[in-house]
Amino acid sequence: MSDPTLCFDQRVLRRQIAAVLGAWGLTPEARDVTTDVMVETDLAGIDSHGIAMLPVYDAKRAAGFVDTGAIPEVVLDAPAYAALDAGGGLGHFAGVTAMRLAIEKARTAGIAMVAVRNSMHFGAAGYYVRLAAAESMIGFATTSTSQRAVMPTNGGEPVLGTNPIAFAAPGEQHEPFVLDMSTSTVAVNKVRAYGYRDKQLPDGWVVDSASAPVNDPDTAVSYFASGAGGGLTALGGDEVHGGHKGYGLGVMVQILSSALTGGDFTPTRPTGTGENVGHFLLAIDPERVRPDGAFGRDVDEVLGTLEQTRPAGDEPVVVAGAPEAAKRAERLATGVPVPLALLDAVAQVASGAGVDFLLDAEHAVRPNP
Amino acid sequence: MSDPTLCFDQRVLRRQIAAVLGAWGLTPEARDVTTDVMVETDLAGIDSHGIAMLPVYDAKRAAGFVDTGAIPEVVLDAPAYAALDAGGGLGHFAGVTAMRLAIEKARTAGIAMVAVRNSMHFGAAGYYVRLAAAESMIGFATTSTSQRAVMPTNGGEPVLGTNPIAFAAPGEQHEPFVLDMSTSTVAVNKVRAYGYRDKQLPDGWVVDSASAPVNDPDTAVSYFASGAGGGLTALGGDEVHGGHKGYGLGVMVQILSSALTGGDFTPTRPTGTGENVGHFLLAIDPERVRPDGAFGRDVDEVLGTLEQTRPAGDEPVVVAGAPEAAKRAERLATGVPVPLALLDAVAQVASGAGVDFLLDAEHAVRPNP
Repeated sequence: MSDPTLCFDQRVLRRQIAAVLGAWGLTPEARDVTTDVMVETDLAGIDSHGIAMLPVYDAKRAAGFVDTGAIPEVVLDAPAYAALDAGGGLGHFAGVTAMRLAIEKARTAGIAMVAVRNSMHFGAAGYYVRLAAAESMIGFATTSTSQRAVMPTNGGEPVLGTNPIAFAAPGEQHEPFVLDMSTSTVAVNKVRAYGYRDKQLPDGWVVDSASAPVNDPDTAVSYFASGAGGGLTALGGDEVHGGHKGYGLGVMVQILSSALTGGDFTPTRPTGTGENVGHFLLAIDPERVRPDGAFGRDVDEVLGTLEQTRPAGDEPVVVAGAPEAAKRAERLATGVPVPLALLDAVAQVASGAGVDFLLDAEHAVRPNP
Repeated sequence: MSDPTLCFDQRVLRRQIAAVLGAWGLTPEARDVTTDVMVETDLAGIDSHGIAMLPVYDAKRAAGFVDTGAIPEVVLDAPAYAALDAGGGLGHFAGVTAMRLAIEKARTAGIAMVAVRNSMHFGAAGYYVRLAAAESMIGFATTSTSQRAVMPTNGGEPVLGTNPIAFAAPGEQHEPFVLDMSTSTVAVNKVRAYGYRDKQLPDGWVVDSASAPVNDPDTAVSYFASGAGGGLTALGGDEVHGGHKGYGLGVMVQILSSALTGGDFTPTRPTGTGENVGHFLLAIDPERVRPDGAFGRDVDEVLGTLEQTRPAGDEPVVVAGAPEAAKRAERLATGVPVPLALLDAVAQVASGAGVDFLLDAEHAVRPNP
């Protein structure tokens, strides 16, 4: 990551994002929640899904596809499940509302799910499952995505989105295990990042309509723009290496996030409508099944054993969630680096929203060469 | 699959398996349920997990690791969850009892989970989620496994089992979507099958303790036997191709199936104890969230769209579950092929159990060259 950047204290990022979202008309609560999701995502090192999304959201807003003043509405409510209509707003507030509801219900019912429809991009799915882990619960989250990017096994065109799965489980002593993964081999933004650096893609990430490897990132990005011609492989890559499993997981996510919620399936979405993204949020209270902290101790044992596994080379064995926790501590201390090109885009968003641009050299904590 | 086989009507397989299980002391209900799980698995074409397991179960039984007379006991019971102690028996009857309980609870609560501990191998996880789909429900199932076979990312030794995930969702018109996958690139038995045929393994399936590819199947099988030295890659393969995602899914399965249930984690299991495998079963009634059949219609739309995707080559795009359904129809009509080598092993099992051996040429429906 040799892009020129400026580093900002996370509180400055918060002020900037909150100012923009407020100007867009988000309710104060939605504004603050959305800001927290975005900044925590940057703190965790998932740079593609934090403030980097602000220009993307702005473009969708300008195109009339976001009801920025939306207030999620509970349309079904039962002891172990609920359904939310997100009202066509950004997905973060709906996602947090839904996971908080799932956690509250799971405290009584032991397990609860909340289905969200009529939503949009909700950032990194890992944020939502961390909410559950912070309340000593297991969290599970999936979301549909509006972009056709992933090739089904044997397919000659992209049909599925990158359809992520997130899962978190709290240890007693250990940092929570937090898995947050697309069901494709790599995410769209990883391919874009190669394009920015004029780097050739490794075989196995992107294929064309005849399943041949595509190494040129610009060609790959053109597929994402058109939703045709080629796309990402599903996790596993070709069928010999289990790509049908990643494809199957992507379909599972689609069914949970759209068919079960009332969200749209992008290839069959009526033209000229909003994105109608759906989210599926699940919380489980492990204390109900494994009382007296046995669950957390067993999670510690699994994670500790994995971390103590003899490594194959110089890199240690890590468990999902640990790198993000370390990154968060680092960035809380030294700031969040933001590429200059992104800062330019955020400056335009701020200007368009009529709010001050705070992310200039004067507010930066230190240059990050 | 050019092994010499004999083909049997599935009813003959049922009689053979039921006779053996009955002689082992399974209760009549457990015997019939276990037989059905095993034969339906063979009918679906998952030859590794049906009657092929009978000699494996026999060896574990002979070693004193199976309480064949076990009756699963409900140890926790609430509206949306339950916990079962399988009593150290084979896992099939416990798994079916647990999924049926989850389905029954989900009919009232909308969603329900059942955690099973003190169990053993339960065959193909797909069987259990199909039970849910047959009741118009979403099914989700995971199980821990007793064998150390899968290398964590950066790891120099196998720690995890192949930790499978199964998921099913019923369409309105369409055959249910049924995903049943190990979280490794390939299953242990796929590697064994290459060994039987003296075929070299493709790169990316198995690696040694320094992460180098292992192509010799006998070397790979020796890792499985010792639980050391090398093992299967997690789905995705190396980290460049997303192997950390497959590894993360394997940990998720471990947490749901063992930490949440009270099952053991193989690397830390006390020596000289039974396997204490755990299963996690979940059922969701989609009608509660998407009434009037909307869920099934949306599942049809997703699956139908996928099947109509323009193929990259000569192979059509298929959805998980469809090949197994087609195989079942075929094998109901023409019989289930069983390799002669396996028949020899089953003959020994039958002899050891003191029951007639039924799977000889006289009872076969036709030779399958």
